[in-house]
Amino acid sequence: MTKRKPNILVSNDDGIEAPGLQRLVEELKTYANVYVSAPYRQQSAVGHSITIFYPLRTYEHYIDGKFFGIAVEGTPADAVKIGVLHFFKDIKFDLVVSGINHGANTAINIIYSGTVSAATEGTILKIPSIAVSLTTFNKSDFIEPAKITSNIIKQMWEDDKINLNEGTLLNMNIPNVPANEIKGVLVTKQGRSYWEDTFEVRADPNGRDYYWLTGHMLYRDSSIEFDVAAVNDNYVSITPLHFDLTDYNTFEVIRNWKINL
Amino acid sequence: MTKRKPNILVSNDDGIEAPGLQRLVEELKTYANVYVSAPYRQQSAVGHSITIFYPLRTYEHYIDGKFFGIAVEGTPADAVKIGVLHFFKDIKFDLVVSGINHGANTAINIIYSGTVSAATEGTILKIPSIAVSLTTFNKSDFIEPAKITSNIIKQMWEDDKINLNEGTLLNMNIPNVPANEIKGVLVTKQGRSYWEDTFEVRADPNGRDYYWLTGHMLYRDSSIEFDVAAVNDNYVSITPLHFDLTDYNTFEVIRNWKINL
Repeated sequence: MTKRKPNILVSNDDGIEAPGLQRLVEELKTYANVYVSAPYRQQSAVGHSITIFYPLRTYEHYIDGKFFGIAVEGTPADAVKIGVLHFFKDIKFDLVVSGINHGANTAINIIYSGTVSAATEGTILKIPSIAVSLTTFNKSDFIEPAKITSNIIKQMWEDDKINLNEGTLLNMNIPNVPANEIKGVLVTKQGRSYWEDTFEVRADPNGRDYYWLTGHMLYRDSSIEFDVAAVNDNYVSITPLHFDLTDYNTFEVIRNWKINL
Repeated sequence: MTKRKPNILVSNDDGIEAPGLQRLVEELKTYANVYVSAPYRQQSAVGHSITIFYPLRTYEHYIDGKFFGIAVEGTPADAVKIGVLHFFKDIKFDLVVSGINHGANTAINIIYSGTVSAATEGTILKIPSIAVSLTTFNKSDFIEPAKITSNIIKQMWEDDKINLNEGTLLNMNIPNVPANEIKGVLVTKQGRSYWEDTFEVRADPNGRDYYWLTGHMLYRDSSIEFDVAAVNDNYVSITPLHFDLTDYNTFEVIRNWKINL
């Protein structure tokens, strides 16, 4: 099938210099027009923040003397917003891709994820969007994950799978195993696993306390219909997410509540 | 009906000194045991951020020489986490209340809301949670909104309406009109209204550009089944929200996608 080249905006939350983003851009460029607008610095766990009390500063980022993209002193959502609405406003984007994040974004982690947030912002701007994460915090060169991601996105583009419901994004997680051990691609639901958190108290050299958030994940998802279990079983997981947070089940239960003022 | 006093944690995103929080605490104290853990500073539009790369500092906050609560140099989610898990860990909380926020948290604004984020964190910690906002950015003494909120929460406590599905929070918005003009309380859905954003470019005194996010809300909700329309029509709006972001409709459509590696 011969389709035109898609226009893709790439962002992330690990910053414009992150290898996960740079390898992905290289791969996408083999078949797409790629534009980059990403945070200047590491922005993990920022959730869906935007900068409204301060202005944004931006820098042109060059690699080997060649323009690579816009670095934004802000959040992932800021970077997508200003990329689409200002720096590349003459481009009609077919897709926003956020990633490849260094670390899984499954189950409850989705709520805190800057990577997912960049894709959410794409969707808010009415552009189909995909968040991509590699399920490890260990060092990775991102070469194989970038090829896998790029290949999946290419198929989706050619098979017209990019345009979903307005407001729906895809959250993709890639297991951190050699490509020949990956079993396939599964469409999944957000898992129910969550963190058991504690705060570790330390004293600074002047004897004043400070607190580190620490914890461990409690696994609650055994079926591969859920993202956490699918990647644990060596599948690439793709979960459709949306930003209508209404709990419709509860809505039906409580809609006739009588509450007086 | 005589029930025991509920244990309520109060937080917000406008900071521990915000009148919206302080008036609410005064009202809740008339029938509840109230504990406060709130950001030290204004934290609007932080989304569901948590602080993991830096440690948290905290301060005891006093009003008129009396201990009022814990001020956290972090986000709303941080404040709720450290309040529940560390400072008040011996308390079994019946409810987390976040607010009263100065400004509406309806429709797409929910995604960016620090106020909703604090309530979401309560729900993640398995405590029933309510976010409360007053739909104005104009100056308010918050006296009437605090009475209305406190009265609604008291009824919900007495009528056993506090405990919903695990993972479901209530997002309440109060119209900014005199109490006698409020028509009642409606259970609603998250609206579809959204922002049309632009970036305003300015030059600093050294001639370097910086960017302010600006925009206006496009109203897309005319029926009072949606939060935006309900508050515009002078109802208190209560929307059940959850943090399972799976788009189940799309899931059913795409679950049998064939994608090759």
